[in-house]
Amino acid sequence: MKSIKGFVFDAYGTLFDVHSVIMAVDRRFPGQGAEVSNGWRTRQLEYTWLLSLMNRYKDFWTVTEDALIATCKAKQLPLDPGARAELMQAYLSLTAFPETKKALGALSGIRLAILSNGSPTMLEQVVNNAGLEGIFSHLISVDGVRIYKPSAAAYQLAVRKMGLEISEIGFVSSNFFDVAGAKVFGFRTFWINRSDAAPEELGVMPDTTLKSLADLAAIIKS
Amino acid sequence: MKSIKGFVFDAYGTLFDVHSVIMAVDRRFPGQGAEVSNGWRTRQLEYTWLLSLMNRYKDFWTVTEDALIATCKAKQLPLDPGARAELMQAYLSLTAFPETKKALGALSGIRLAILSNGSPTMLEQVVNNAGLEGIFSHLISVDGVRIYKPSAAAYQLAVRKMGLEISEIGFVSSNFFDVAGAKVFGFRTFWINRSDAAPEELGVMPDTTLKSLADLAAIIKS
Repeated sequence: MKSIKGFVFDAYGTLFDVHSVIMAVDRRFPGQGAEVSNGWRTRQLEYTWLLSLMNRYKDFWTVTEDALIATCKAKQLPLDPGARAELMQAYLSLTAFPETKKALGALSGIRLAILSNGSPTMLEQVVNNAGLEGIFSHLISVDGVRIYKPSAAAYQLAVRKMGLEISEIGFVSSNFFDVAGAKVFGFRTFWINRSDAAPEELGVMPDTTLKSLADLAAIIKS
Repeated sequence: MKSIKGFVFDAYGTLFDVHSVIMAVDRRFPGQGAEVSNGWRTRQLEYTWLLSLMNRYKDFWTVTEDALIATCKAKQLPLDPGARAELMQAYLSLTAFPETKKALGALSGIRLAILSNGSPTMLEQVVNNAGLEGIFSHLISVDGVRIYKPSAAAYQLAVRKMGLEISEIGFVSSNFFDVAGAKVFGFRTFWINRSDAAPEELGVMPDTTLKSLADLAAIIKS
């Protein structure tokens, strides 16, 4: 796979552990961290798909906040402005997965970028807070096209920004739907399947499935 | 609201109880009916949104079967061809909600139609098996436009088929995302909220919220 000249990474769930918000949620709502965090994440993604289909784009910060509000309402949990601000803040300082920094460092000589649903400000902050500044040539937000993944327009943005051919780009995500969208678009795809999950039945499969980001360097040299 | 000349109903979850498959699932996988049924329904909807955004439409029978397969794989439940056929069959003979038939009968003089994600064959069978044949002037499937709700193209299909103005059509669904899509499109919307759920935060609210289909007749005469 020496033909790959650039890697484009998904951010949330791939480089950064979105469930590291569990602890923040648990502090506010003791014992309910996992369930609220899951509901929040599910709504966050579902809202991006629904808003895209309704042609009613809102940026990811707003979507994330709306998803939090709806999740708390559904569970009848009180969310005062202080709690809301605190939980949203947790989203800006997500933990990178343990292998992230070293795995990216091992990909020297290859152009690295992020393509994410996250708004430009969110991306910049989460990258800096995780100590990953300077590693990526581009932090690309779908905000540039105002439609979310897995729409082709989102992936096209990465091609345009990176100045590489589609065939020269490897796309890396732990979110199966994202890998599926990238594959349909034409990227060479790498599914990071940390939890040994079953693939979704979307009629398209990743080119390569890996247990963690740490396996990327070996693949690229083969 | 005497200006309403036609009601367009969503099918699954609105007229027909999709969780009546719980019993069929429970017979195959004792004790797991609710969880498998929920996973199946969640994937079924999410797949319609993802396939629409990827521009990779598959009809709702295929999507429903794929969602069942993926749910069983995710839960490591064996799904042999016999079980698969039996569970899919359950989808064709869903129970109508207790009030459905009488509530529709009370709307005499108003044109009634179904606009559903379901494929034409699925719709015909579920309507007939529930004893609702002859009540609807049109059984409209999004299969005619090969994109799922909440895309505007799906709702437009109902306008075209029914020969009424957008403002003359009331759209009825218990699925919040569907009501949201119909409202964005321009229909007068009625959200059937049987479980007293909190609205989703999609930036759009139903015109009217009702506890059951039985409340429609009174509204229309007001």
